[in-house]
Amino acid sequence: MALLNETANGVYVIAVTPFTETGALDLDSTDRMVDFYLEKGATGLTLLGMMGEAPKLTADESRRLVRHVLKRTAGRVPIVVGVSGPGLAAMAELTHAVMDDGAAGVMVAPPSSLRTDDQIVGYYDMVGEAIAGAPLVLQDFPLTTQVQFTPKVILTIVERLSNLVMLKHEDWPGLAKLSALRAASDAGKTRRISILVGNGGVFLPEELSRGADGAMTGFAYPEMMVDVWRAHTAGNIDRAHDLFDAYLPLARYEQQPGPGLAIRKHVLARRGVIASATLRKPSAVLSAADIADIERLIARQTRRLKELG
Amino acid sequence: MALLNETANGVYVIAVTPFTETGALDLDSTDRMVDFYLEKGATGLTLLGMMGEAPKLTADESRRLVRHVLKRTAGRVPIVVGVSGPGLAAMAELTHAVMDDGAAGVMVAPPSSLRTDDQIVGYYDMVGEAIAGAPLVLQDFPLTTQVQFTPKVILTIVERLSNLVMLKHEDWPGLAKLSALRAASDAGKTRRISILVGNGGVFLPEELSRGADGAMTGFAYPEMMVDVWRAHTAGNIDRAHDLFDAYLPLARYEQQPGPGLAIRKHVLARRGVIASATLRKPSAVLSAADIADIERLIARQTRRLKELG
Amino acid sequence: MALLNETANGVYVIAVTPFTETGALDLDSTDRMVDFYLEKGATGLTLLGMMGEAPKLTADESRRLVRHVLKRTAGRVPIVVGVSGPGLAAMAELTHAVMDDGAAGVMVAPPSSLRTDDQIVGYYDMVGEAIAGAPLVLQDFPLTTQVQFTPKVILTIVERLSNLVMLKHEDWPGLAKLSALRAASDAGKTRRISILVGNGGVFLPEELSRGADGAMTGFAYPEMMVDVWRAHTAGNIDRAHDLFDAYLPLARYEQQPGPGLAIRKHVLARRGVIASATLRKPSAVLSAADIADIERLIARQTRRLKELG
Amino acid sequence: MALLNETANGVYVIAVTPFTETGALDLDSTDRMVDFYLEKGATGLTLLGMMGEAPKLTADESRRLVRHVLKRTAGRVPIVVGVSGPGLAAMAELTHAVMDDGAAGVMVAPPSSLRTDDQIVGYYDMVGEAIAGAPLVLQDFPLTTQVQFTPKVILTIVERLSNLVMLKHEDWPGLAKLSALRAASDAGKTRRISILVGNGGVFLPEELSRGADGAMTGFAYPEMMVDVWRAHTAGNIDRAHDLFDAYLPLARYEQQPGPGLAIRKHVLARRGVIASATLRKPSAVLSAADIADIERLIARQTRRLKELG
Repeated sequence: MALLNETANGVYVIAVTPFTETGALDLDSTDRMVDFYLEKGATGLTLLGMMGEAPKLTADESRRLVRHVLKRTAGRVPIVVGVSGPGLAAMAELTHAVMDDGAAGVMVAPPSSLRTDDQIVGYYDMVGEAIAGAPLVLQDFPLTTQVQFTPKVILTIVERLSNLVMLKHEDWPGLAKLSALRAASDAGKTRRISILVGNGGVFLPEELSRGADGAMTGFAYPEMMVDVWRAHTAGNIDRAHDLFDAYLPLARYEQQPGPGLAIRKHVLARRGVIASATLRKPSAVLSAADIADIERLIARQTRRLKELG
Repeated sequence: MALLNETANGVYVIAVTPFTETGALDLDSTDRMVDFYLEKGATGLTLLGMMGEAPKLTADESRRLVRHVLKRTAGRVPIVVGVSGPGLAAMAELTHAVMDDGAAGVMVAPPSSLRTDDQIVGYYDMVGEAIAGAPLVLQDFPLTTQVQFTPKVILTIVERLSNLVMLKHEDWPGLAKLSALRAASDAGKTRRISILVGNGGVFLPEELSRGADGAMTGFAYPEMMVDVWRAHTAGNIDRAHDLFDAYLPLARYEQQPGPGLAIRKHVLARRGVIASATLRKPSAVLSAADIADIERLIARQTRRLKELG
Repeated sequence: MALLNETANGVYVIAVTPFTETGALDLDSTDRMVDFYLEKGATGLTLLGMMGEAPKLTADESRRLVRHVLKRTAGRVPIVVGVSGPGLAAMAELTHAVMDDGAAGVMVAPPSSLRTDDQIVGYYDMVGEAIAGAPLVLQDFPLTTQVQFTPKVILTIVERLSNLVMLKHEDWPGLAKLSALRAASDAGKTRRISILVGNGGVFLPEELSRGADGAMTGFAYPEMMVDVWRAHTAGNIDRAHDLFDAYLPLARYEQQPGPGLAIRKHVLARRGVIASATLRKPSAVLSAADIADIERLIARQTRRLKELG
Repeated sequence: MALLNETANGVYVIAVTPFTETGALDLDSTDRMVDFYLEKGATGLTLLGMMGEAPKLTADESRRLVRHVLKRTAGRVPIVVGVSGPGLAAMAELTHAVMDDGAAGVMVAPPSSLRTDDQIVGYYDMVGEAIAGAPLVLQDFPLTTQVQFTPKVILTIVERLSNLVMLKHEDWPGLAKLSALRAASDAGKTRRISILVGNGGVFLPEELSRGADGAMTGFAYPEMMVDVWRAHTAGNIDRAHDLFDAYLPLARYEQQPGPGLAIRKHVLARRGVIASATLRKPSAVLSAADIADIERLIARQTRRLKELG
């Protein structure tokens, strides 16, 4: 399988990890999910992300899930694997394993203890050593990690780590940062890397206008990201916004921290993609009122999409 | 002027604090802004909130602004004043002053150092002493304060402070909390207080369905909150959602932490409400790309509202 | 091997994890270290604690280290194993493994994301399920975990988890908490559990007076904790303070967050206990000035202990 | 009165704010306290520091306290005034007032929201504008502020603000930082500023060896800091350590976050310096066990100092 590089674009769906009702890995649903994401136009998949319940898997389960997906995709799209964790030795071990198995690259978010610019740069130097040349995706997600990357720090890491090929950009707000990063590479001051955006896609059209290459996020309607990206790339900006606006009420609802993943899995189960919406603990449980909200939002979304044609 | 009580509802607009280009208090714009908010249907106003740049004013300026607005509104709507701050003595002093001047109540957010349930309850006991009987609004806004209130803690404070009459609810996510609070008062286990929601209104229709009495937030189109609340209260839920959806893309954009207030003041200046979009430092500065985004969002919003009729 | 229970007392040394110069597990030094700790009077050992560089080991290395120590101690003292981590599945797996191998119990610190009392109690409910009956040590160390346990929360967990047998108490300040916990069990309101104190022992005599049963910490002179505990237990309070005061300047120096572990390993290597002071990354590096400080402090400590006789 | 400059050294005592039993400012005790600090050898005083309960005073009380102390000291020693707070307008106002009244300089700690290097530097740029040329002390106290300054960031601020004349250094650990700052000025790469250390003085002898110019802290035995500094400055390093070690057990006890200030005021009241140990809320309350600890520690300290002669 080809390795991830700076030209990556489109939509890398952050895959959920399907479980059976009793909490075991559900590999049948995993197959269905992979097929679904690809049918909807995913240009890549990301496994073991935060929304993939990565820390809730044992080391062995993580390995099995990755292998299974790699087998199912069979090289059709690149697979990025999240290897973040509290220790570099475990990160090195998992990276080595999944790259051997055929992954296209690995993604690393910073530990929440990092504060100063030097601490962040120093940490990624150590990550660079640990992953030994594997293509790297830097995850910038301060809402969850509490680590704040300035554009300067990101560009410093880009310079120090030649294998850093992609930024998963989900700072909030993040538009000014995106503009600053693109200004630096446009001016030739820095290597241009791929930037895919997260945050459930709720700023996708504006981010594409600022130079994002697509999205890496897991909204239960991946066709939103794909269709918005395609329309935008085709220069049909108004169409991109029309589609985005139709999905925004539900995307906003799914993006709630905490219940968000339960909502996402509920919708994926409702769409027949996964057999069960089960999450491993700790997990939120949806109430009847939550589900009523979701039903209304889906009905309205369907109606609006029909209006748009 | 009547004091704030548990029956408060509708839309209390979080007022910005208008400054001239050189950063002085702009009392002419303040008059215009007050008139604008009332024309759009505000049922109350909140001064010196976080989005009112309260900490950037001197004690004297805070007093002057409140007096000026009280004079302009002349009792037409209740005025709530934010008195949060690092010390109880200053809080007591400001509360005493503004209540004497005719405010309807005061609002207090917790200091970010509070962690345990006991610390939070203990802090509001001290607040209760400091404000000496003034009607109190509890601001629950973890994204900014980093203090997390459980429903149990809020209900404990409701029980201990008879002058706590309103919750400014802006936890995110907050729907389950809202349901829990309303379930407690519906079951007669606790006094029912007014709950107005914040977060720029981006969950307003769902929150109204869960029992919120309205909104206390400052989106630059306060008619959104007013019209959604009116439609919802009239039982026209679909109409409420239609209106909400039309405003959501811009509301989402304005709700970005950091630049959000600059966006809000930019739009208010663009609408002719305030003379200048000036913020006091520290403050975000909008780029040309930000302003282009805003223009597109306003144009699309206007078009969509026209379609809805 | 006997399981850990509520009567545990004395000094459980938090063991370092010895590495060779190249960063491999050093099992020869591990043997020497185990013997050293036991000769100095340790009544138990704790492996894979924060100061045991637990997150820097792979799952396999963790298992090997524990097995090796269990073989060397051969049941002479109980072995507690730290199993904290971001996921419950991995915690369950490691617990199962080390308990099968003969550990006396496991220790769990909370993830730093926990804030409210309910979140903390809920987390330990899940831990209780994950470790399935293994004797549990609760680590209360807010300086590092940022999680604040009130006495009420600890007592709630004591009540809900019958296998919670020990508190590793290292809140700072923690004296009032210790008094509150002991008052509750003295009054018969709660089960009395073992409380061993941490923080490098820098409040040990005062904590013993408040009802601590000993220490669980890793100061490079474990004889300090043993001798202070013995003198105190024998009713010789002044002697306990004299000894404590002699070691305090160095204990204070070693307790510095960050370089503390490098200092500890440096001293253990200097004392001939471990072959190398090597830490795995991320790690602090001692300067010549640091080492000069340590030399002066050891020389002064030696002189003072001689004076005391 | 002369303004503070880079040559400042010795011991600037962080003054407590004396209150009567009912919580009013106690200006008689303030006089006695000022005299006491000067008799013990203070070379300066710092008012309205964190341990001076600054946020608990109204703006008017702050002004009155500063004026009163300035009158009592009558130019005998320089007075530094803490002006930290959430807003720059209030900071400017207080700075202007106290400098007019005769203060030697002002001290500013950063707001806890700052994270990145750029945010910190940007904040102090704004502080520089706000205080308009008044001599500035930068307070680096991450344990409380949660803001982490690297040496590089401090040196950047030194370069940008010519009126920055002193660092109140209380990072923990902070020895390596002190060495780095002194190495930079020794190598002529940066202006040398005064560095006074905090943290209750519990690393004072080591910090003096690294190039600190003295202490700015409020341990209830200021003679400790004065005598250790004098002995150290006279080249009598062992004597400095002997004195330090005698006071360390109590200094460590007083340095507990939370109850620390109650302990300090208790000891100052016990020494007859202030009439009442009263703190304003929020405040810790000492238990009988705490007071017994303090009595034992003072008795042992007195005995040990007698032995030392």
